[in-house]
Formats: sequence, C-alpha cells, structure tokens
Amino acid sequence: MKPQRKGGLYRSRLGKGLDEDALRYLSSLRDDEEILVDDIEGTEAHVIMLAEQGIIPEQDAEKILRVLEELRGKALKAELALEGEFEDVHEFIESFVIEKLGIEVGGKLHTGRSRNDQVALDLRLSSRRYLIEIWRAAIELAEALLSKAREVGDAIILHYTHLQPAQIGYLAQYLLAHFFHLLRDIERIESCYHRVNVSPLGACAIAGSTLPLNRRRVAELLGFDGIVENSVDAVSSRDFALEALSAAAILMVNLSRIAEDLIIWSSSEFGYAELPDDLTSPSSVMPHKKNPCILELLRAKAGKVIGLLTAALTMMKGIPTGYDRDLQEGKPVLWNALQETRDSTRILAKAIKAVEFKRDRMFDKAAETYAPAIELAESLIKYSGLSLREAHMLVGAFVKELHESGKLLKDADLGSLERLAESILGKELKFPETVFKKIIEARGVADLRTTEGSSKYSEVQRQLELGQERLEEVRRRLEKAMKNLSNSRRKFEESLSKFLS
Amino acid sequence: MKPQRKGGLYRSRLGKGLDEDALRYLSSLRDDEEILVDDIEGTEAHVIMLAEQGIIPEQDAEKILRVLEELRGKALKAELALEGEFEDVHEFIESFVIEKLGIEVGGKLHTGRSRNDQVALDLRLSSRRYLIEIWRAAIELAEALLSKAREVGDAIILHYTHLQPAQIGYLAQYLLAHFFHLLRDIERIESCYHRVNVSPLGACAIAGSTLPLNRRRVAELLGFDGIVENSVDAVSSRDFALEALSAAAILMVNLSRIAEDLIIWSSSEFGYAELPDDLTSPSSVMPHKKNPCILELLRAKAGKVIGLLTAALTMMKGIPTGYDRDLQEGKPVLWNALQETRDSTRILAKAIKAVEFKRDRMFDKAAETYAPAIELAESLIKYSGLSLREAHMLVGAFVKELHESGKLLKDADLGSLERLAESILGKELKFPETVFKKIIEARGVADLRTTEGSSKYSEVQRQLELGQERLEEVRRRLEKAMKNLSNSRRKFEESLSKFLS
Amino acid sequence: MKPQRKGGLYRSRLGKGLDEDALRYLSSLRDDEEILVDDIEGTEAHVIMLAEQGIIPEQDAEKILRVLEELRGKALKAELALEGEFEDVHEFIESFVIEKLGIEVGGKLHTGRSRNDQVALDLRLSSRRYLIEIWRAAIELAEALLSKAREVGDAIILHYTHLQPAQIGYLAQYLLAHFFHLLRDIERIESCYHRVNVSPLGACAIAGSTLPLNRRRVAELLGFDGIVENSVDAVSSRDFALEALSAAAILMVNLSRIAEDLIIWSSSEFGYAELPDDLTSPSSVMPHKKNPCILELLRAKAGKVIGLLTAALTMMKGIPTGYDRDLQEGKPVLWNALQETRDSTRILAKAIKAVEFKRDRMFDKAAETYAPAIELAESLIKYSGLSLREAHMLVGAFVKELHESGKLLKDADLGSLERLAESILGKELKFPETVFKKIIEARGVADLRTTEGSSKYSEVQRQLELGQERLEEVRRRLEKAMKNLSNSRRKFEESLSKFLS
Amino acid sequence: MKPQRKGGLYRSRLGKGLDEDALRYLSSLRDDEEILVDDIEGTEAHVIMLAEQGIIPEQDAEKILRVLEELRGKALKAELALEGEFEDVHEFIESFVIEKLGIEVGGKLHTGRSRNDQVALDLRLSSRRYLIEIWRAAIELAEALLSKAREVGDAIILHYTHLQPAQIGYLAQYLLAHFFHLLRDIERIESCYHRVNVSPLGACAIAGSTLPLNRRRVAELLGFDGIVENSVDAVSSRDFALEALSAAAILMVNLSRIAEDLIIWSSSEFGYAELPDDLTSPSSVMPHKKNPCILELLRAKAGKVIGLLTAALTMMKGIPTGYDRDLQEGKPVLWNALQETRDSTRILAKAIKAVEFKRDRMFDKAAETYAPAIELAESLIKYSGLSLREAHMLVGAFVKELHESGKLLKDADLGSLERLAESILGKELKFPETVFKKIIEARGVADLRTTEGSSKYSEVQRQLELGQERLEEVRRRLEKAMKNLSNSRRKFEESLSKFLS
Repeated sequence: MKPQRKGGLYRSRLGKGLDEDALRYLSSLRDDEEILVDDIEGTEAHVIMLAEQGIIPEQDAEKILRVLEELRGKALKAELALEGEFEDVHEFIESFVIEKLGIEVGGKLHTGRSRNDQVALDLRLSSRRYLIEIWRAAIELAEALLSKAREVGDAIILHYTHLQPAQIGYLAQYLLAHFFHLLRDIERIESCYHRVNVSPLGACAIAGSTLPLNRRRVAELLGFDGIVENSVDAVSSRDFALEALSAAAILMVNLSRIAEDLIIWSSSEFGYAELPDDLTSPSSVMPHKKNPCILELLRAKAGKVIGLLTAALTMMKGIPTGYDRDLQEGKPVLWNALQETRDSTRILAKAIKAVEFKRDRMFDKAAETYAPAIELAESLIKYSGLSLREAHMLVGAFVKELHESGKLLKDADLGSLERLAESILGKELKFPETVFKKIIEARGVADLRTTEGSSKYSEVQRQLELGQERLEEVRRRLEKAMKNLSNSRRKFEESLSKFLS
Repeated sequence: MKPQRKGGLYRSRLGKGLDEDALRYLSSLRDDEEILVDDIEGTEAHVIMLAEQGIIPEQDAEKILRVLEELRGKALKAELALEGEFEDVHEFIESFVIEKLGIEVGGKLHTGRSRNDQVALDLRLSSRRYLIEIWRAAIELAEALLSKAREVGDAIILHYTHLQPAQIGYLAQYLLAHFFHLLRDIERIESCYHRVNVSPLGACAIAGSTLPLNRRRVAELLGFDGIVENSVDAVSSRDFALEALSAAAILMVNLSRIAEDLIIWSSSEFGYAELPDDLTSPSSVMPHKKNPCILELLRAKAGKVIGLLTAALTMMKGIPTGYDRDLQEGKPVLWNALQETRDSTRILAKAIKAVEFKRDRMFDKAAETYAPAIELAESLIKYSGLSLREAHMLVGAFVKELHESGKLLKDADLGSLERLAESILGKELKFPETVFKKIIEARGVADLRTTEGSSKYSEVQRQLELGQERLEEVRRRLEKAMKNLSNSRRKFEESLSKFLS
Repeated sequence: MKPQRKGGLYRSRLGKGLDEDALRYLSSLRDDEEILVDDIEGTEAHVIMLAEQGIIPEQDAEKILRVLEELRGKALKAELALEGEFEDVHEFIESFVIEKLGIEVGGKLHTGRSRNDQVALDLRLSSRRYLIEIWRAAIELAEALLSKAREVGDAIILHYTHLQPAQIGYLAQYLLAHFFHLLRDIERIESCYHRVNVSPLGACAIAGSTLPLNRRRVAELLGFDGIVENSVDAVSSRDFALEALSAAAILMVNLSRIAEDLIIWSSSEFGYAELPDDLTSPSSVMPHKKNPCILELLRAKAGKVIGLLTAALTMMKGIPTGYDRDLQEGKPVLWNALQETRDSTRILAKAIKAVEFKRDRMFDKAAETYAPAIELAESLIKYSGLSLREAHMLVGAFVKELHESGKLLKDADLGSLERLAESILGKELKFPETVFKKIIEARGVADLRTTEGSSKYSEVQRQLELGQERLEEVRRRLEKAMKNLSNSRRKFEESLSKFLS
Repeated sequence: MKPQRKGGLYRSRLGKGLDEDALRYLSSLRDDEEILVDDIEGTEAHVIMLAEQGIIPEQDAEKILRVLEELRGKALKAELALEGEFEDVHEFIESFVIEKLGIEVGGKLHTGRSRNDQVALDLRLSSRRYLIEIWRAAIELAEALLSKAREVGDAIILHYTHLQPAQIGYLAQYLLAHFFHLLRDIERIESCYHRVNVSPLGACAIAGSTLPLNRRRVAELLGFDGIVENSVDAVSSRDFALEALSAAAILMVNLSRIAEDLIIWSSSEFGYAELPDDLTSPSSVMPHKKNPCILELLRAKAGKVIGLLTAALTMMKGIPTGYDRDLQEGKPVLWNALQETRDSTRILAKAIKAVEFKRDRMFDKAAETYAPAIELAESLIKYSGLSLREAHMLVGAFVKELHESGKLLKDADLGSLERLAESILGKELKFPETVFKKIIEARGVADLRTTEGSSKYSEVQRQLELGQERLEEVRRRLEKAMKNLSNSRRKFEESLSKFLS
C-alpha cells in the first residue's frame, strides 16, 4: 500500500522532477520508518486543531482524519511500505491523502505547517519515546544491581585500582557503586526528557504563520508539557537531541566499565564470574569456548554511541541558524544511538541478574594478596603513634621483604615488623599482637573500617536501604511521566472520535 | 620556592627511583598548576577535620596548617613553581611539608587519604569553579542578546533556511531564538553543577578507611552540598566531568552557529553586520582587510571542545572500575575544554554588544526577495478558499513566472496571479487588492502573523518581557550558589583561624 | 529460501540455546547482507583449495560447491533472505549447506577455518570493493573539476580568506585547487587499497592450523596481492579498516568545503552559482524556494563519516589483542562510512558538472572591492622602492580614506595616494600613472602575477595541462588494479568450473 | 629579549588597537613556541631568495639575516620569550626586525609573503620534524619487539580470543604480530611524510604574487621535495595534517592494545609479565602497590589522540575554501597529538625492552586449559575421517564432560572420547593413541601446525628473519629522508654564510 503519485508534490516552482541520483541521495524515506506513526499522529492533532480553530471545515477534517486513521492502522501493523519517489515521510503521507481525497480537501492537510516544524515535532515525539524506554531499562538495571547486591550478601572481593589488588572489601559495595552511578544517569535522562517534551509545531517554516493556529492546543493533544516559545528556535535548535545523545553516551561509558570488569572476571585466570550458557557464545571451530560476547559487544557499542554523538555535534557545529538540510542527517544518528543504549541497558540487566559470582575463588584471591597493607599502616598510626608516612615506609619495606622471600601477608609475623621498624625508623614498635593477627588474616579486615560509604558490611547494608529508597523515588517519577502521556493520549482519542463519529 | 627532595616519597616498596623518561611521561605536575590552590585548600580542610576528630594532635595540625597557608599565599601570588621529580601536585605538597616539619609531623598530612580521593576532590573543586564562571558568562551573553534585541527594535531581517531567504521578520526574533537556547544551556550547566558539588573525600584508596574520618565535616568546610555515598563510586566515576564536557560542547555548538551567521553577515556580499575595528584583525599583506577572526576562532574552538569531549569519553570507555591512571589524562582535557568554553562565551558577549547591524541593508535585501510568497499562499487560503496545496502550486508558478521575467514580487500585479489561477487551477480567484498590495510591499508582512512565538513585532515584545523574567530567575539561582560558596568559605576561614591563633 | 535449522550450530559445548534477547543483541545477520556474496565466494575459494590439497575429497568439494553456487545465484538476485536464529552469515551459510548435504559432507565446509579469519576475509573483500568504487568516483569528480575549469575559461572571481575578499583571480584556479587536493585523496585511497588487499585466510582461530592449508592459493584465487603473514595479526588487526575510514573522512572534509562554498555562492546575496532545478529541492510550504539540499546533506555526511571514524577508533582502542567480539560492531560502521563517501563523491561530481557560474556577477562583485590593494602595495615596492611594510601602511590608510568617503578603488586617483605618502611616510612618491590605472581597474590585475602556481591566466592553463597528465596516471593505476581483479576472477571461475563439470 | 613595540603592526587600515580580551582570545603566541625556530629559518630562506632574485638589495638582506641569526641563536638557547601584544610569532619576529633595522630595511622582511603561506610553511616544517621522530621511535619499538621475540625463544603462551584461552602457541608469535602491524604504521607515517614535505611558500595571501619570487629555490633551501602547485591549495588545505593525525591515531590504537595486554598480564591473577620497579608507580597510601601506570596512561593517551583527530576534522569540516582563522586552532591540536604519539611510542619501546615474561607461569596456565581442543578436532579429521562439524560436536561434548567432572584435558583418556563418539555420532572411532597423548600433553601441540604464518616454532623463526629484513628496508628509507634533510641544511647554511661574510 503506497501512494501512486511519483513525488514532486512541492515542486511548484522548480521546473523538472528531481534527478534520480539526487533523490536517492536526499531521501530519508527509509530512515523515516521510525517516525511513521509519530508523523501520522502529529498530523492528526494538527488537523483537529485546524478544524477547532475554523481554519478548515469540520467535514474536511473528518475526511482527512479517516484516511489518516486508516494509514495509522496499517502502519501499526507494518503494512505500510515507505517506498516511492518521495523525499521523506511527510511528502509520502500528504501525497497519499491527496490521492485519496483530491487536492481541494487533501491539500488542506499541510495548512499552517512546514516540514521544518513537522520534523522537529516527530524528532521530539520519537526522542521522548526512546528516553522513556531507556529510563525504564536503566531502572530495571539499577534494580538488578540492588538485588544482586542483596543476593551476594557478605561475599568478599578485592577492590582493584590499576587492575592491581587495592583493598579487600565486599562485592555488594562494587555493585552499589554502579547502582549509585546509574541513579545519576537516570537523573540526566529525566532532565533531558523534560527539555525534549515541548512542542515546536506552529513555528511553520521559521517565522510562524498568519493563520490563527492554536499552538497550545496541539501541544496538549500530543502530551507535551508546553511549547517552544520562539519560532526560529523551534525549527533550528537540536540541543535537545544532542543532550539525549550525551546522556546516552555517558550511560554507555558507565555500562562499558561494568562489561569490562565482567569480561576480565570471566577469564579463566580471574575466574570470579560466570555467565550462564544461554548468554554466552561458542566458537565455530574451537569446541572448548564459552565467550562473554554480549559484554564485548556492549563495550563496542559504547564506542559506537560515542561516535554517533560526535557525528551529531559535528553536523550541527557552525551551520547557519534556521533549518538546514544537514539536520536531516542527524535523525538516524539519534535513533540509532538511543536504540543501542536501550538494548544495551536491557541486556546488561539480564546479565547482572544471571551472572554467577564465585564466592570462594574471590575470597581465596583476596587472601593471597598484600591488600591489607593499608589497614596495617593505619593501625600503626592508631596503635603505635607513627605518622602515615612513617607507617607507609615501614609497611612498604615489610611487604617488599615478604615478597622477596616468597611469603604472603598471612604468613608474616609481628617480630619481623618490629625489627624493620627499628632498622628503618629507629623506633621501638608497640603494636598489639591481636590486632596484627586480625589484619593479616584477611577475613574481617573490611569491617575494621569506620567511614561513611566504605566497603564495610554494616555500611553496605545501610547503602542498600538508601538505594532502595532512591530507586522508589526514581520509579515514581517515571510512572508520573508515563501517566501524563497516557492521559493525554486518552483525551486525544476522545477528540479524535468526536470527529469520526 | 620548591621542595629540595627529589621525589619518590611513596616508593617505600619499589626498589629504585622512577626512570627519568617514565617520570616525564607520567608526571602531571605542569597540568596541576590548575589545582594547586584547590589541592592546598582541600588539604587544609582535611587536616582541620583530622585534628577535630582527634586523629592527629592539634599542635601538629597547627604546624601543618601554617606551612600550608604559607604555600597557599605563594600559590595565589604565582610564586610557587611546580617543578621537580614529582608525579603530581599531591606528592609535591606533601614533600614540601615534610621537608619543613620532618616526617613525624609532616608525615601526618596524608593520614586517611589517598591520591585517589584527593584528585577526585580537586577535580570537583576546579570543575565547580569553571562551571560557575561559564554560568556567569552565559548569563552575560544572554543579557547581551536581550539588550541587543531591544536595541535593534523593529529592524527587519530575512529569516533563512538552507541559507536561502525564507520569511521576512525581525532581527530581534533571531536574537531571542539564541537567548532561549542559551537559557537551556544554562539549565544544563546548573544541573551539572549540583552533581559536581559533592565531596568524594574519605573514600581513601577505594574502600574507605579504618580511621574515624568525618566525611560530612570536610564537605561542609569546602562548601559541598553533600558527599558521594559509595567509596568505589567516589574514586572511580567521572560522569560529572563527562557531563560538564557535554554541556560545554552543546553550548559551544550553539555559539558556533551564531558565529557562522555573523561571519556570513559580515561578508561584503551580505553586509548585514559589522564588528568594530577593535574586534577585528588585519592581514599582514593585504592592506584592505578587516577579518572577523574572533568568530572564526570561536567556530574552531567548538570543534576543539567536541574533540576534547570525544577524548574524555574514549578514555573512560571500557576501563576497569576503580582508579586507573587513565583518569589522570582526563584532567587537562576537562580544564582546557571548560576554559575555551568560558572564554568563547565571554568574547561572544562582547561581540554581540559591539556588533552593528545595518538596518537599511537588511531591509533592502528582504524587500528584494520572493519571501512573502508563503504569506501570499496563506492569504489565498483565507480569502480565496484555496487549499494550502493549491495555493502553493499557484504561488510557486507565479514566482517562477516573475523570476523568469526578471521581476521582483513587489513589482507583481494581482491580474497576473488571477490569470495563472485560471490556467493552473481552473479557478476564478477572488482576492482583495489591498491585501495583495500589503503583502507584496514587504514592510508589514511580518505583522500579519498571529501565532504565539512568531516573528511579529508584538510577539517579539512579549518574548522580550518573558525573556527578562527568565533571566532574572536564572541570575537568582546563580547568586544563591555563589553565596553558599562564600558562606562556606567564611566558616572555613574561621575554623582555620582558630587553629592558627 | 533459508535454512530450516534454528541455529546453534556451534554450541557443541554450551548446554542451552542462546537466550532470545541475547541472540537479537548479538546477531549481525542483517548487517551481513553486505558480505553475503563475498562470504560465499571466499568459501568457494577455500573449498577448492581444500580439495586441491587433498584435505577433503574432490567429490565432496563438488557437492559443496554446487550448493554454494546455487546460493550465490540467489544472493546475486537478492532472493536469499538473511533470517533465522543465526549469529551471522557464516553460521547461516554453513547451516544451509549441512541441511542440504548432511553433516558428513556439508560439515566439511568449515575445515581449517574459523569465523575469525573468515570475517577478516569478508571485511577485506568488501573494503576492497568500496575502495575501488570511491577511487573511481574520485576520479570522476577530479575530471569534472578539470572540465569545469576548462569550461569557465577566464571567468574572474574573488578569492576569499576569512570569507572576506582577498585577491582577484580566476575561478578555474579555485577549481584546480580542489582538483589537486583530490589527487592526494586518491593517493591515500590507493595506498590503503594495497594494504587492504592481502588475505588473512588460513590464520584460523588465531594461531593457524595443523591441516596442510595452502594460504597462497586461496589468496591467488581471490585476487589478493599476498597474505597477512602472522596469524595473530591476521585475525586481530583492523588498521586497514581504520585507514580506509581515515582516508574517507579526509576526503569528505575536503568535499564539505566545496559544498560550503557552493551553498554560500548559491545564496541570493552572493549569487555566483546556481544548481539546476533537478538538483535542488523545494519547500513544502514556501512556494519561492530553491534549496541546494544535496550540498547541505553532503556537509552533514562529512560530519557523519567523522563520527563513524571516531566510533571505529574508539571501539578498537584498548581491547586485548586477538579476536574480540567488539570487532563485529565495526563492520556496519565501516560499510556505512564508505557508502556515504562513495555516494557523496558521485553526487558532487554531478553537481560540479551541472552548476552554472554567473560570470558577470562574479566579475562585478570583484570589481567593487578593494582586493587589488595587495597588488598596489607590491607595485609600490617595485616602482617606488618602498619596503613592504611601508607600502602596506600607505595602502591601508589609502583604503581607509576611500572607504570612509564611500569610494571604491576604481574611483581612486593617484594624487590622493601621493598626498598620503607624504603625510604618512614623509616620502615623495614616484609611481607610474599607467600602472596605477591598470591595477585599480581590476580587470587584468590577476595577470600581473608572476609566481608559479598563482591565479594568473597562463599559470592556470599550465596547471590544467599538468592536471590532465596527473589524472591520466591516476586513471591508469586504477585500471591496472581493476584488471588484476578481473583476471583473478576469470581464473577462479575456471578452477570452479573444473570441479563442477 | 622581546620587541618593545606593542603590536598592531598590520593594523594600517583598522583604526584602533585590538581589544585586550580579543587579543588574548586570538593570540597564538604561546602555542607558537613550537615553530619559533621554524619560522625564523623559513624567513631566512625567503630573504635569501628575495636577494638572489633582486627583489630586495643584498645589503638589506644581509642586515635582516644577521638579526634573524641572532634571534635564532637565542631561540635555540630558549632565551627568547614569546610575549607581548602580538597575534602570533610572525608578527613578533617582524616587529623585532623592524625595531632593530627600521621600517625601510626591516619592513622588507615580509615582501612577497603572507602569514597565510608562512604559517602553512611552519606547519609543514614542524609536522615533518615530528613525523621523522615518530618514524624513528616506531622503528625503535619494532626493533624492541623483534629483540624480545628472539629473547623469549620458545616460551609458550596462550593466544586469547574474547580474553578466553583460544590456542596454545608462542609468545614470540604474539610479539611478531605487533611487529608486523607496526611496519604498516611506519608505511603510513612515511607516505604522509612525503605529502607533507612540499613547500607552500610563494602562494602569498591566496593567489600568488606579482613579484618575481622563486618558489623552487626556497623549497630547495628548506629541504622540501617540491612545491604545492596551486596557490589556493597551498594556503587552504590541511589534509596533510589530518593525514598525520590519522596515522598517529591508528598507531596509538595499536599501541593501546599492547598496553592493555600487558596491564592484564601484569595483574596478579594472570601474572605473565612484570615491569621493573623503575617503570612502575607506587600508591601514596597503599604500601604494597606496584602499578603499571605508564601503560594505563598510554591507553588514555590513545583516547586523547583520537579526540584530537576528531577535533581537527571537525574544525576543517564545512569551512569555506581559503585561509580561515579556524586553521590557527588546528596547530596546537596537531603538535599535541604528534608529541603524545612520539613519547608513547618511545616509552613503550622502553617497556618492551624491560618487561620480564614469566615463562613457567605462562606454560602452566596454558597446560591447564582445554585449548588444544581445536587441534584434537583437526586430528579427528585427519585420522578418523570425521567432518569438521562432526569433530567439533564430538570434542565440544568431550570438553563439556571433562569440565563437569572437574578434569583437565591432560587427564583425559582416549576411551572416553571413543565412547562419546559412539553415543553422539554413532561412529566407531579410530584414533592413534600416540597422537592423542601428544595433543593432550600440551607441550608440542603448537608445533603440529603446518600453515604459513602460524604460531609454530619454525614458522616463528622464519617470521623473525623476514621481520629483520623488512626492518632494515624501513630503516634505510628513514635514513635517506634524514640525509636529504641534512644535505639541504648544509647547502642552506652555505648560502647563508655567503651573505653573512
């Protein structure tokens, strides 16, 4: 089902049809699949307003709306092929309506509107939809992180810096770190959503219209929070899209770091984490393989989203104010980036739910390191009155001696430390044997911590509760935004049905 | 004035000094000039807290604070050369203090702290400062746009799409478009500011400390709104910096479009705008030149900021959670981008204030085009009952005929339009001669508009008022943030003077 | 036509089928449309070699090749839908063959091969194809520039710097500047082509195979110049793709500047250039519009290609050596960028051929400026013995005086210049009246130039001849590369038909 | 030592001095430190030519050259502070000379030249220098890889794909993979060098000069291979810089992957590699740390260079042909990226020379995996007549069974495999016990390989020899380029001394 007309609807001044290569180069028809339904719904709202304002007769509006509803039905069932010699979906749909109803009635569809404000509308409608989806997916992932943090309980893990063992702590603390980061990602998505959710329609080509359009009414019908005040701003600006892309890129960078950790932890050398079979991939030729491919792809897709953000910024940089055709090229860039972000967030939520952490392995690795050296140094401050720098020097030399003699910290004795203190600092050390034992035994060193937000069991529990509260607030705000949209949609349908009945 | 010690303060375990090439490659000392004062002040706050918590003796704190104050004084007068074999400013300052006070007292400076949380602190302090400056500069530019919009009054200009004349309107509408865009840029800066303004200190290396540090007290002393809860998050995350860079890049893209317009309008062919001599550059060899170089540079700097954002995102992508040395490389990238953004915003404010728009030239150019064709078409809907598409066809053919016979729209006669209506649409046209005359005469066509936010004189006045209100709100919020900082600073100095007196 | 089997061909070790969401996330099947034919042909060459080396029986090879030829036929007619639960085209094709021939025969298809070397092969085959197409398109554009330079003859134009009139010269010189730039772009494409055109096959998973594969034979059958020596390098490296993307991005940036010039020159204010109707676009609502949209899109696509290059570099940065799934994500990025580059180069060639330059308008604008000021200054060096800096000061003041009194250079008189010389330099000027007249009259000032490569008519003619020679060389090298490919293809088909007959 | 004059040398037409903020924004003086010597030397060559051509008197040339030599001497000793109210180094130097010699003599310095061609010259001179340095550093790194490959002899390592064990092979093969990649990087640097090494001087502002400049003579004096033919191309194009940046970015991405491998291999969990103490960094607070920071920084710097390439491409995209001030902003971007690339290549060469690989650890880890599964499958093709796909199914199931029963491949027995063959394939397996033993014992499995370029000991030896040959060729070409430069420099100095004696 498609219009028979061969395009060129708008070429009233231009003599010939568009060159075939030029049309192929120019046409965004294939990309516009994304906004087919948006474009129809936006057009319906516009037509309702035109009739309400008396700009076109009600009976004409009715006819046009019937055709649009037919189109919308087909579009929703994916029965509407976007093909033919059209520059874009807007020309496609208008051509269709004119073919059905003739130019005297169908030709009224575009009254008081330009493709310039129309495409800005469609871009906002589609961005809004994606942002809601990403918002949901991010909440789902945040929830998965929180659940997993609860599930792993008091599992010990090394916290790494420079991919070297730093301090011993809790796996839940690691998961919570990403949870709190994700909350900020969600905040960014949310702020952006509200800047996206205003209507540009009525700006017409760039300077507004001499027809008595009611911009607020269209905005209300389509669930917008308001309108873009200035008509030049409305057709020319794409900062809302750049902001959505930035928020997506920052989120993806965050996810790519979780992916990197899990890839490394899935290596046989680390052996901390294992994805289930149904989330891993085999080799076509190596029968022994179990590859965490979804995580690698996610990492790569972060690179892709960064590139798409760069593309969009570069496209917009230094072009004249007003609608330029450059803006067209930004559409698929935006959609592609938001899709990848949504899908990556969802798949990572699935991976986090499914991943199995190897409790014993993580503990054993932690126990084999010199990681408690820092707590030993801090205890030397507390119990022996050393300055941090003295304690650091002493423990550094102590670790060096142990390392060179092939000993682990757990096999160390206090006597050696005392001897070193004398030779290095020229001090007689007073240090309680029990504390020394507690620290070098590894288990429990984490719980010696006292600071707020640290990787200590009771602190982790507190963070879990705090996290739960924050998650609930975030979820409530998403639900409110979604409810506003569904309420508007209901009213829109009521208005529509008035015309059609 | 610099420490005599040759670095290597922390190499307690590592046998040899750092290789010279490696040190040169690793050291961020030169870049750290940016955070020299921040680092000293952050250290002072930390030391005050250590003494208040009884972690170090008050008299030791006093000695350390005296040395730090001496350093701060010199740093503020740019008398402190960041030189020597140090990896960074943190090692530099600690070495200095230890040299002065010996390891038993000076060695307490770093108690309960790691460079990991310390550099995160410095990065937040410096980002906060830049964000405030950009926020101010953006308000200054917004104000300049508003003033200029008032100043140019009812000056007519063509609104362009595709760099082709689109509709005739008001220059003030153009200026307001960028004003409203800028308000959104300011909102983004502001949101980012609040996510930046929380303290990471107390996270220590990554997992927190066993010493009874009071994280909230340090945050209060330094004017932060709160703390980064999770210690891993505190040292590992840089989303706040990526967000600042994104907001800067989007702002710069916006500014680059204003620059592009002004560059084109400054060409002798357009001749709409002229910068004063003191904002333009000559040629070394062409005596006749007057080049709008600051605008070209601004356009290029937008490209640079985009590249720096890309660099920062790429650096962060796919690195393990925790502090990685990669993060160091992000520091100058961030500062450089924020400086350029601040300076570009300021210079554009100056240019906007100073630019002279050529009222007559803009009007003449507007009057020479076929731009009112769209309003003619809309009037044919209103007065002659044509559908938009019929009107578009008719007016398109009309313009084509005029163009081919070398006539402008203002020289057209209604008769020709009526004849065309009959030949093209087969319709007898009823159209009021007075309306026709009004439209083709150009002056006044803009005021035929009716829609909210359009380029119509009364609408522009309304937008001006609205703009003024919004600007006041924005300014109030900046002032509040600045006041919070100065209040905190005052309290900080009181606490400091307690120790020093 | 597609395999009935539901995928999972390689999951011999992995217990369950792949999770549905994970499959959707992982599968590159849709993107692989690009390499469907490449993959089949690469597989055919591999199978021929396997049989020639006695690794699989000739009769098995024959059966497999028949099925592959059937597939290839359908693929070429676009009758092969890449659908189903497959991770990629490789699994799809192998599944198809096994379904047809059973696992005992069909299961031999993949002998001595991994998807790792196979996808590297496909990527090189497809890159090679695109590079040839871009190479051709660039030659076509270079030719169009040269023809147009000939066609415009001695048309005068202003050369601009800072978008301000700099010196008067020839339009042909401008066109030749881009011609010579394009020659360098072609050199970059050509160098890259030769680094792309080596075969990775035989590297297997990463370390090579224990089967007696003949890597050189496969390379010969597929028209490669040689093999990638090291097996790890063969599967892990993508520098050839990054190089192709870089060359494409640099070319696109070049083209975007031509586009920018033409967009500005097509403005009604400049009025230097006009694209024919069939290469321009109308407005949906403004009947008077004629927008150079293809040029704006090209400019935007340059931004897109820059973003795709960034994406690819970012994906590859810091991932471990070896095949990582990240590499998959680079495939569509590469293809998309190369397509856009090819299409943009072609459309610009068309635009250059078709664009009409407004000779008189360009001359008039040139004559209205102070551009010959620089030649006047140089003549003051030659005829009056001034130093350049004195001449510059004098002429600068002269232009200023003219400008302030509203005079053009052509209306100036020598007397004023002499008076100024005395007041500014304190010198009595000796300057031939005839030279003064010649310079200020504008026409002919360009031909006063003497330097090699300057915008002087005779130099332009020389450059045209030189350009023609260089173009022929470049064309010869392309033809040679294409001939090598077609010769190989012929031999390949002979080998194939031996098996099939 | 600096000019007393306050700038504004070129403002002959422009009434007032440049606004202070505008000057600060515009001035590239600080960045121009990079090209101070280049600019002086380029100016000297230009002045020699001017005198040789009789454009300026020999005695004036002599005076100017003496001042320039004095400046050059100071610049080389870093005694020339680039300060003052100058837009750039060109104005700075000319002002200096005029101050010394007066405007009648000193004012001749700039004859027949513009900053437009002058800065293009300086950019080519500085790019050339950096490219030579990177070329050398890359050869040094290539040599280090080759030496290390020889040094590690027959050390076994796992080759990884997806960071999972893939096949067992030789560490030398890994090092050679990067060696061969690096050869291609060197080729790209070399091609670029030759496109950089042509002289733009004589293009003047944009269209050439009316003075009888000898462009070839200047090119010869400065060691260029030729001239940029077209004057517009000469001042407007920066593709050479974009190409240098691309080659640098691709090289850095390559290096970042080596860095990533070494970071992971330096983890205590892998434990394959250890950098010496003098190339690692400690923690300020964790006494046990030994962090491979130079590798992490290198990884980050790859991100930075990608960002700088993006910045440069974005700056150039869509700006008008001709010199635009945007180009100025590209200078520090280029230099910064080339410096980082040079330094990173050098530091990695140092790291490769110094890194210690843990032979036994690598072997043990290799022996613990199922990696020989692929060779077992291939042997089942050879000895048992299975198809690859059957063999893959069988071995996959075999590995799964072993894994589930906690057995390693080396503990497997042929009987189990035979039983599985019957249950899965319904086939009685004939497989030689000796081959089975050989494969599962791990040591020696690599040498079963036969294919060219594989990870097999004899192949590795062959690749080493081939690598050595290629390295010699590459080195010879670098030496030739360097010799050309030093020869030119000698001749230049002879010409110079003729004037000065």
